[in-house]
Formats: sequence, structure tokens, C-alpha cells
Amino acid sequence: MKIVVALGGNALLKAGQSGTVEEQYENVETACRQLVQMAQDNELVITHGNGPQVGKILLQNETARDKTPAMPLDICGAMSQGQIGYILQQGLCKEFQRQNVERDVATVITRVQVDRDDPSFQNPTKPIGSFYSREEAEKFKKNSGDTWVEDKARGGWRKVVPSPMPSKIVEEKIIKELVAGGYLVIASGGGGVPVIADEPAGYKGIEAVIDKDLAGELLATIVDADVLMILTDVSEVYLNYGKPDQKKLGTVSVEEMEKYEEEGHFGAGSMGPKVNAAIRFARKKGKTAIITSLENAVKALTENTGTQLKSGV
Amino acid sequence: MKIVVALGGNALLKAGQSGTVEEQYENVETACRQLVQMAQDNELVITHGNGPQVGKILLQNETARDKTPAMPLDICGAMSQGQIGYILQQGLCKEFQRQNVERDVATVITRVQVDRDDPSFQNPTKPIGSFYSREEAEKFKKNSGDTWVEDKARGGWRKVVPSPMPSKIVEEKIIKELVAGGYLVIASGGGGVPVIADEPAGYKGIEAVIDKDLAGELLATIVDADVLMILTDVSEVYLNYGKPDQKKLGTVSVEEMEKYEEEGHFGAGSMGPKVNAAIRFARKKGKTAIITSLENAVKALTENTGTQLKSGV
Repeated sequence: MKIVVALGGNALLKAGQSGTVEEQYENVETACRQLVQMAQDNELVITHGNGPQVGKILLQNETARDKTPAMPLDICGAMSQGQIGYILQQGLCKEFQRQNVERDVATVITRVQVDRDDPSFQNPTKPIGSFYSREEAEKFKKNSGDTWVEDKARGGWRKVVPSPMPSKIVEEKIIKELVAGGYLVIASGGGGVPVIADEPAGYKGIEAVIDKDLAGELLATIVDADVLMILTDVSEVYLNYGKPDQKKLGTVSVEEMEKYEEEGHFGAGSMGPKVNAAIRFARKKGKTAIITSLENAVKALTENTGTQLKSGV
Repeated sequence: MKIVVALGGNALLKAGQSGTVEEQYENVETACRQLVQMAQDNELVITHGNGPQVGKILLQNETARDKTPAMPLDICGAMSQGQIGYILQQGLCKEFQRQNVERDVATVITRVQVDRDDPSFQNPTKPIGSFYSREEAEKFKKNSGDTWVEDKARGGWRKVVPSPMPSKIVEEKIIKELVAGGYLVIASGGGGVPVIADEPAGYKGIEAVIDKDLAGELLATIVDADVLMILTDVSEVYLNYGKPDQKKLGTVSVEEMEKYEEEGHFGAGSMGPKVNAAIRFARKKGKTAIITSLENAVKALTENTGTQLKSGV
């Protein structure tokens, strides 16, 4: 089988960790044990989030702004692809050798094109970077025209950027070539570096964040994967999550999941985009989307656990 | 012909520039005009330096150290590969479209293995990052055990790291596959992320900088390039450079160049590694090494200008 695995940013950097390189390597080791086990019998393509990592790069850029020019978000995204790709390459390579599997790992710096008329540009909603005080946020806003919102639960202000839909993976042919060649490919990290078509030629990087699960769905479609596996903190998707009548979802049909989605069971900033990406993929004939935890990844494949979406079941 | 082009870090960030993204895109536009013209009739593989860029990443890491953990040099190198690769992809893509050439550009995050017994580990010589005062340098030294040296000409102290010889490009098969597939490949940026074999498996990133021209020579060898083209500030290599009797070198034999090298014509921190990489490549049967300026790159190919090394001429 061909499987596209979408790793959460937390597979490398967990909430509460300060983000030292030692912590990241330790986290990645756990992830790689599961990934390499899966790669023994399957073709694997990996994509990953970059929220915590790009947050740190933005913080470093902001802190050193008086000493050296800060880079825009698209460049920071490309840097995070290099960083995370390298750490995953190191971890996978080590685990492949341990498990006696010959497999080369390729990180492809990936741009993802979005439509310049995407409605999200009128309504930025994706928070990025650090939390700031109201006064600091006001100052940033005045100097840049950016949008800032208050996160009352976590007590601070954060910049928000558009989160447009992915329409094309610019490096599509390259990724396909490497997958066909039998390599384990890491691509479209952080949802890809978002670009729009530029005039008269080429692409222009933009300040936005493409959801990594939606980009992962596009990636799974272009490589003609059988399974899109979205790995997150929980082993199953829940209805009425956190309420007394919460209910675990096992194998469900796309039609059923669409109904739950319409009923508003899944939060926009958490399970929503994952369920949406899973539905989009599983709508296609013969395709399966799985949402589960990193720890349960191998078991989900071999024992059909986790939340599994199939069309027409 | 198959050509490996080694771009100096200054192709993207010139001395005296502050390093804004606008400056970098402008510089890269000039570079891409030459590169795409060459790519019309030739297969091209690009490698590049990362000195100025990784210097800025290190400065940002250092400045924000109290807020978020600083990353080690190998990770910063991988980040610079993502950054520079992306900027080159953007520039090349635009210029390919302008010149009506269909060509996809792939940036491959590249690790380069070195020997753990390389003598350079006993004698770090490669300066990295910013200049600091004697007092600051003493403090860094005390906390880390790193080696710092004074650069009297530029009035400050800089950290130095080992510069070991490259022995293997870990992503060799991936690079070859993409070159064979007709893609323009960007690889081994900044000399590659330096790694040593780890026990019992995998690789370990180390604090070192591999010379990008020597890594470029290895890259040119593994892809079986006809030409290794090293682009720098001057259109030719000189003997007695800067003296009244300085002499430009046009087409010279490897044997002649080896003699000049032995006579000590080429500085260790400037032309030395370039000439050394050129000699290593041109020693191989039927191979040509060219050292010239970015502006003169196309002309060097079509009119045999620049300094050209061939075996047995």
C-alpha cells in the first residue's frame, strides 16, 4: 500500500517542552519507530506540521530585528522544512538501519500554490508565533497593518494570517518521481510554503499558512496513495468531545462523517481541518483516511483501529 | 553537457548588504539569468555557499537564547539549505518561465559524511557567525569550550570550527535519480550538513563546516558531470594576486596549477579551496574545472574565458 502520513507538529515538539534539539531528537525517535515499521511493508510519504518550530524562528527573527533583518513568513516556512526534514531524515535513517531496512529518505523543499482570490485573504484566522501583550500587539499592528486577535483562554494577543486552500503542489513531478523510485519522501512540510502565481512569470511567496492536513490530502491525491493517515494526540475522533455523552468513532462512512461535520462536532482550530481533509480524501473511490494517534499508527493499519473513513461502507 | 555550478554565498547576499529578503531576491535574479541561459543547453546541478545566511541564523539564535533554545550548527545549516534552496527555486522558476524553458527545480536537503578522524577536528580553522569583543569571546569560550580567534584586520573575535574533508554525500542516490529524471537539482548547500557515522546506526550531526567547493567537487564526481564551475568574485584566478606582477590565468593544465598551488599562490581562506577543488576534479579523465565570476559564467562556457583547468592540456 501507498500511505501518506501527516505528522502533527507535536510529533517533534510537545506542548510544554522548551524545544531543545535533544528533546526534538527524542520525540522523533518515538515517531520513527512507528514510521519505519509501517515502511517495511508499505510505500511511505511523510508530511508534517511546523507550528512550534516556525513559532520559534519567528520569535528569533523578532528578537534580533535590530541586528539583522527579519525574514518573512514564507522564508521562515522554508527554513522550518529544512530543519524538520533534516531531523526526520536523521531519525528515520537510524531506525531503518536498526530494523535492517535499506531505504533512502528525501526531503523536498515544497511550495504549494493557492488561489489569489481565496476568501481567507479577507478573513485571516490562523494564529502564528508568540503571544504578546495588548500594547505590543497594538504597536505591531500600527507598523504593519497585520491582524491581531486576543486569545482570552491563554491570556495574550497573537497575529493571525490567512489560511487559504491548497490548489497545486509546485514540486508535484519531483515528488512523484522520487516516490516511484522507491524513496521515502518528506514533502509539503508545514502545509508547504504558500505561493501565488506572479506576473508575468513564476510564483510569489505570501504571508499565509496552508493547513498541513489539507495539503497532505492534496499530496496523497497526487501520489495516488491508498491511505491518508493523519496522526494527532488522540487515537480516535469523538462526537461531543469532552461532554458526558462523548462517543468514539471507529470505522465510519464518508456520508456519516459529513453529517457529523455539518452538525458542528469538530472545532475549527483542532479536529475540524483533520476531519475535513479525511472526508475529501475518502470521498475518492477505494481510498481510506485514518485519524489516530502516533502511538496507534501501526495498530491502526494492522488491526483497523483508530477512526477510519471509507467511502460506501 | 552536465555542469555542477558552485555559487558563492555572495551570489545571494553581497558584502555590505544588510540581508533583507528584497536584496536577496534581487541578487538571485542576476544569478538566475546566467543559470537559466546555461540550463537551456546543459544539465545543471547547483550547489551554494551559506556563510552570510547561516551567520544571520546563528546571530538570531544567540540573541534570542533567553527566550528559546539555540539550535546547533548542523540544524542551522539545514535551515539555511531550506531558505536558500527556496529563494533559488523561486528565482529559477521565474526565469525559466521568462525564457520559455520547461524545467522543474528540486532542493534536496543534503547531509555530507566526514571521517570522524579527520585531522581538522584537532585544528578548527573555519570562522563562523558574528564578530564579538574579546570579553564576549572569553565568556563564550568558558561556557562552551569552543575555539575563538582574533581577526585583527576586521577588529573582532570569531568562533572557529573544524572544516573536515567530505567523504560521502548521504543523499547520493536521490540526487542522481533526480538528475537522471531531467530536473535541475539544488544540493549540498553550504557544503552539506556535516555528519559522522553514529553507533550503532545512522548519522550524527556535528559542529563543523565542509568547504562548499570541495563538497561541490564530490557532487560533480557522483553525478558524473563534465564540468565543475566554481563561481566567485573574480573572472580569473591570479598568480601574485594584488602585487605589481600579478598574472591572470586562462586555460592551464592540472600539472601547472598543482605547481602554483605548491608555491603558495592561493590563500587558505579565499582562492585556496577553490583551486584545490578544481584540481581534484580536473585530474579525472576528460573533466574540466572552471573558476570564474557569476557575470562571466555563460561566456566562460561559450568562449572559453575564465580560468579553465583540464588534464593533459
